[in-house]
Amino acid sequence: MRVPDLIEKKRDGLEHSAGEIRFLVSGYTAGEIPDYQIAAWLMAVYLRGMTARETAALTQAMAESGDLLDLSSLERTVDKHSTGGVGDKTSLVLTPMLAALGLTVAKMSGRGLAHTGGTIDKLESIPGWSPELDDTAFLRQAREIGLALVGQSKNLAPADGLLYALRDVTATVDSIPLIASSIMSKKLASGAHTIVLDVKVGAGAFMKDLESGRRLARAMVEIGQHSGRNVRALLTDMDTPLGHMAGNSLEVIEALATLRGEGPQDLLELCLELAREALLAYGFSEDEARARPLEVIRSGAALAKFRDFVAAQGGDPGYVDDVSKFNVAEGRLEVRASHGGYLVELDALEVGRAVLALGGGRERKGEPIDHGVGVEVLKKVGERVQTGDVLARVYHREGRGLETAEMMLARALKVGEEAVKAPPLVLDRVF
Amino acid sequence: MRVPDLIEKKRDGLEHSAGEIRFLVSGYTAGEIPDYQIAAWLMAVYLRGMTARETAALTQAMAESGDLLDLSSLERTVDKHSTGGVGDKTSLVLTPMLAALGLTVAKMSGRGLAHTGGTIDKLESIPGWSPELDDTAFLRQAREIGLALVGQSKNLAPADGLLYALRDVTATVDSIPLIASSIMSKKLASGAHTIVLDVKVGAGAFMKDLESGRRLARAMVEIGQHSGRNVRALLTDMDTPLGHMAGNSLEVIEALATLRGEGPQDLLELCLELAREALLAYGFSEDEARARPLEVIRSGAALAKFRDFVAAQGGDPGYVDDVSKFNVAEGRLEVRASHGGYLVELDALEVGRAVLALGGGRERKGEPIDHGVGVEVLKKVGERVQTGDVLARVYHREGRGLETAEMMLARALKVGEEAVKAPPLVLDRVF
Repeated sequence: MRVPDLIEKKRDGLEHSAGEIRFLVSGYTAGEIPDYQIAAWLMAVYLRGMTARETAALTQAMAESGDLLDLSSLERTVDKHSTGGVGDKTSLVLTPMLAALGLTVAKMSGRGLAHTGGTIDKLESIPGWSPELDDTAFLRQAREIGLALVGQSKNLAPADGLLYALRDVTATVDSIPLIASSIMSKKLASGAHTIVLDVKVGAGAFMKDLESGRRLARAMVEIGQHSGRNVRALLTDMDTPLGHMAGNSLEVIEALATLRGEGPQDLLELCLELAREALLAYGFSEDEARARPLEVIRSGAALAKFRDFVAAQGGDPGYVDDVSKFNVAEGRLEVRASHGGYLVELDALEVGRAVLALGGGRERKGEPIDHGVGVEVLKKVGERVQTGDVLARVYHREGRGLETAEMMLARALKVGEEAVKAPPLVLDRVF
Repeated sequence: MRVPDLIEKKRDGLEHSAGEIRFLVSGYTAGEIPDYQIAAWLMAVYLRGMTARETAALTQAMAESGDLLDLSSLERTVDKHSTGGVGDKTSLVLTPMLAALGLTVAKMSGRGLAHTGGTIDKLESIPGWSPELDDTAFLRQAREIGLALVGQSKNLAPADGLLYALRDVTATVDSIPLIASSIMSKKLASGAHTIVLDVKVGAGAFMKDLESGRRLARAMVEIGQHSGRNVRALLTDMDTPLGHMAGNSLEVIEALATLRGEGPQDLLELCLELAREALLAYGFSEDEARARPLEVIRSGAALAKFRDFVAAQGGDPGYVDDVSKFNVAEGRLEVRASHGGYLVELDALEVGRAVLALGGGRERKGEPIDHGVGVEVLKKVGERVQTGDVLARVYHREGRGLETAEMMLARALKVGEEAVKAPPLVLDRVF
């Protein structure tokens, strides 16, 4: 095989064989094929597209470029992935729900970067909790409790990292088959049989409109079909943040409230919908899939699973029952409405950037973060607002980044004269 | 300006400004923009195309990446370019014709590589003739004789060399705007006001069909229009070699015969047509442009110019008048027809490869060549052939490469039962 011939093939809109794609991915990962040839190929892929078969082969080749987690000793494994958002504490609520429903979550999670948060950072607000488990402990905990979350200690799909870095500087990021294979390569390498995807759509998300979101979801579901996995996707609104809280400790506190049945409606609804997809994937009836997730909240079973999970990974379970223990920053600043009307916009991206400015996120990998800072949004889009109402509350550490955060919140929150209807949370499902 | 933004613009089919193209070309030439970004951009150009304005800006930017010849002190300058063929000794006949017609040819010419010959190599068959002239001598000779030919001593359009090397390994060679700008960048840097182009079409040429050839010619003429140059192109057949001879000394001998009015019809016709285009570009009437080129052959004026030119650059003018002086290889092998019929195919590419095998060309730059070897084709496509007729004669040096050359000629020459009509030489004109 000659690389220029393969570039030419894609340039001319022809379909690659799985062998050809493996040759390109493994050659690039091994450093045998230079950047410039893969860059030309990526642009040809961007402009010519890829068939479902090619996309699946690319995903598989990237997954096989590094470690593969073997979860074959576990029953009913489920993984969950969100395309990323602000104030998205879904995993904190959903994963104990799934465990309480009898499914197994043995999952690798990431840390936050820029304006997006990461599950591992959030959980580290609980003193003692550690994302480090060896393979044996990880599998045993998953088997016993149904829930184990670790950091990305493994070398999962290194080809994806290499290709992403190249795409980033060659204007080839924004391609459905390349995005789908990038996400799914890590999911395939992570070993779960069922994968539920939360594809965010809107201003705060990577996919700006529903149609692009649908195409991405369909591409990922098709990769699952070609790879013997059960993949189901929800398309959900991400114009505004989920729940009220953004910031590490604040999100854990809100997740715990949700597990107690006292959380915000939108967050609960999303978790119920995602749990439903996971149950449907395992053959539960529509009725069961709708009723059972709510039961594990009402009975406290999901909360109990979360407590067991925290304790198993070294965390203080006292925090689960008494959220006043969290080290929330003591500085407070309230952002008030300067005029009355309706909240017509609440830009998730700007809220995320405000948290970053306060010290609650990191610009570069490895930077330490302050778990206690964040933003609480008191009004949701569509709600009535009176002059002087508190729209948002900032939790800051001795004023650090406060001015920037205030400026961003001023941009994020718009009060208008006419009531707007908030969009529905779940926009579509693809499976 | 950010490079990924520029790649994105072309990826999305938008038009670059001249400044954006200059930024990319000068950044790449300076080593400030890496290969992989230019590779992605080239693929976007390949698939999205370029407007005439963009192509002209690219050509200009490449021309300005190196030395620019200043021919402003000369009158009625003409340059000529052929997209390359086998047995193409046109420049040897045309340039003295143009000088005899009162135009000025102050031209850089190349050496041969692989199966194509180069004018400099051919002229070096004449002992003493040198392609090295300093700037002053070059301009003075052009002014006095109307003809000076030098090797590529200047750093002409280095950006083109860099981009071509990258295109070669990223499947982006075969793009009309990129081919057109590559050729024309060197022509613009070479300074002549009028440029006549011989765009070869057919099996032995880079452009395999007339429509692609037309598009390339149009692109180059448009570059001229945007750059204040007068560019005129002929589309000519290159399925079979021009004239009868292929090989350095043999081609000079055939060119001299043509200057004496005793050469092959096809070569003479092409030179008359190209000279006509040059005269039309300088405002001569259709009648004059048709009559005068033949006059300078008939009167011997073109031959006299060639003699003066050879002498001015140190060559022995005795060779011009007595071609028996040329050191033609003494080995002879005749390829005969094994059956009667008509010559239906004479593949120029295979003839060129035969000359290369005999030692008359070079595989790599800088290799020495044997000026005396070559191939003489005795029959042209369409001619009647009887069993035992000599189809071609090989001039070899003690058998070197003879077996390979014979095999290639056996592939090149096809005798069939039905007469085929040779295509016309000039297929179209673009100006």
